[in-house]
Amino acid sequence: MSTITQNQGETVTPATPAVDTAGVPALLERGRTLATPVLRAAVDRLAPPMDTVAAYHFGWIDAEGRPAAGDGGKAVRPALALLSAEVAGRAPEVGVPGAVAVELVHNFSLLHDDLMDGDEQRRHRDTVWKVHGPAQAILVGDALFALAGEILLELGTVDAGRATRRLTSATRRLIDGQAQDISYEHRERVTVAECLEMEGNKTGALLACAASIGAVLGGADDRTADTLERYGHHLGLAFQAVDDLLGIWGDPEATGKQTWSDLRQRKKSLPVVAALAGGGEASERLARLLADDAKKTEAEFADFDEEEFAARAALIEQAGGRDWTSQEARRQHTTAVAALDEVDMPDRVRAQLVALADFVVVRKR
Amino acid sequence: MSTITQNQGETVTPATPAVDTAGVPALLERGRTLATPVLRAAVDRLAPPMDTVAAYHFGWIDAEGRPAAGDGGKAVRPALALLSAEVAGRAPEVGVPGAVAVELVHNFSLLHDDLMDGDEQRRHRDTVWKVHGPAQAILVGDALFALAGEILLELGTVDAGRATRRLTSATRRLIDGQAQDISYEHRERVTVAECLEMEGNKTGALLACAASIGAVLGGADDRTADTLERYGHHLGLAFQAVDDLLGIWGDPEATGKQTWSDLRQRKKSLPVVAALAGGGEASERLARLLADDAKKTEAEFADFDEEEFAARAALIEQAGGRDWTSQEARRQHTTAVAALDEVDMPDRVRAQLVALADFVVVRKR
Repeated sequence: MSTITQNQGETVTPATPAVDTAGVPALLERGRTLATPVLRAAVDRLAPPMDTVAAYHFGWIDAEGRPAAGDGGKAVRPALALLSAEVAGRAPEVGVPGAVAVELVHNFSLLHDDLMDGDEQRRHRDTVWKVHGPAQAILVGDALFALAGEILLELGTVDAGRATRRLTSATRRLIDGQAQDISYEHRERVTVAECLEMEGNKTGALLACAASIGAVLGGADDRTADTLERYGHHLGLAFQAVDDLLGIWGDPEATGKQTWSDLRQRKKSLPVVAALAGGGEASERLARLLADDAKKTEAEFADFDEEEFAARAALIEQAGGRDWTSQEARRQHTTAVAALDEVDMPDRVRAQLVALADFVVVRKR
Repeated sequence: MSTITQNQGETVTPATPAVDTAGVPALLERGRTLATPVLRAAVDRLAPPMDTVAAYHFGWIDAEGRPAAGDGGKAVRPALALLSAEVAGRAPEVGVPGAVAVELVHNFSLLHDDLMDGDEQRRHRDTVWKVHGPAQAILVGDALFALAGEILLELGTVDAGRATRRLTSATRRLIDGQAQDISYEHRERVTVAECLEMEGNKTGALLACAASIGAVLGGADDRTADTLERYGHHLGLAFQAVDDLLGIWGDPEATGKQTWSDLRQRKKSLPVVAALAGGGEASERLARLLADDAKKTEAEFADFDEEEFAARAALIEQAGGRDWTSQEARRQHTTAVAALDEVDMPDRVRAQLVALADFVVVRKR
């Protein structure tokens, strides 16, 4: 990984050897190409109107039910699941049910989280609860979660049982993470350690599962699976650190979110907690400002103009929150890639897992 | 089953030989005694505050967090799961993880359904979304669903994988049933067949799973499990028919719900759709009345007094909806019990499964 370049074009991490992520689009595309037909067939099993609501969520149709070539997300997880099968010396296709199951769980959590968090936009479109109502968001989320288990267990193999067990544990941690995220919103102070724990649950656990599930389905032993999970866990933490940077300084055109998205939601994301933990004048000014913000109602907060959010972002940066988070992304990236050394795998597969890790930290959306 | 006696003390089904449900409280108690400690240990795994919210839902603590000897429900499902293990010639304890997993899924659906339906009371207490907010109801429901899979798959056996697969399919059908239930609320006319299909999904599928999961964990073959599912499915339909009777004519003291509970929610339950399908003067008057009701807002509807609901209930009864539903409960009961003839099992276990079926149709709560 060379740099993390933010939307202002500014380089925020020290220079390291250049990365080659040129092959990553093809990897992501392979994941999409192999997983999407199976995912669509799974979603087609849902009783109406859940099939339609799910198709809207995945971007396959628009709110009026017309076919759409929507943005189905970055598809990092399916790409990982397929590579993971190749780690075990199997064809990428062996990882497909795992890729689909992980995508189903990921999207179950998006449907529920968007409703719980009151988020109105996702992937440049209105969220499901906004278009189809809260009940459909709950119901279709539940259905996708159940489908994930069904897809795997229908394989009927011992390895499918092992994969489902890992996926279920990852889902529980993902739910724990969302519970922590919600509880932190009501707390005045959150430590960096607490934030990292929350992000490890909310993002790390499912990426860890994506990185190991193909190998498990391909018959890899638990030690190999655990090591791949370690790679995926740290990759997830790097991913989330970058997400937290994009949530404040990201380009709305690229991310599909509002400007200063996380600040508008008063999220105690990594740059914020790191800035508050840093001490110094900017940190103290930020703490006073956020303490005042916390007393405001949603409506008062919604009246804030761009400049007020920009001022908060500037303070977070001055207090070192932006730098620290960029460095954290790099640290997690390094730990992730180091874990790969503990597993025997074809050189090509190893290079692609490294390239995917590089991509995660240099991405702008 | 001899009769279904409603709260007015009126006998609504033709007399059949007397039943002996005297042993049923002990069966239910055995299910509770064996399953509850494992259920509590599972819930204790949840991250705060989800553990507390779940404990409130299960009736173990009150809204202030003080220990409570709450009403955890009838516990028909755990009793069935334990008996099901005995069908396979195993100790009832073999069914315990199945009993706990089914209870977790059942309660996941209650948490989400209460929120989607806007129900404010369950088991004589405020519902979770009312006390702890919608986000906790969603989150804890999700967590209980995930825990169910975890509990089973931790057993690490092939039979546990089979049991989880059946539970997951049942859960999907349960979700389908809730989707149908919601969509029917917005429709002017629902057929009896549609209503039965919905109830088969919403109630039948999980009771079917409860009736087979112990046997599956005990190593029973798929034919035995399928037959036990058939018993449970029809038992579920009988159960729901009785629930639909109690939802209109039940005693609020016994059911823990409001008077005319299902009428207040404009539910198109079996007595209603059967009355509308019956034809005749009362049926036509009812249809006109319900068509007018459908145009009213929630607020206008909430202003109705007891007499207005009583008038609707009387019309449903005159149009034959109450009788038909009572007979349907008896028909489903008969089919359920007949399925048991296809499976070899100890006489004592068979008698207890029959007694449990009898109990389901004579219960008043």
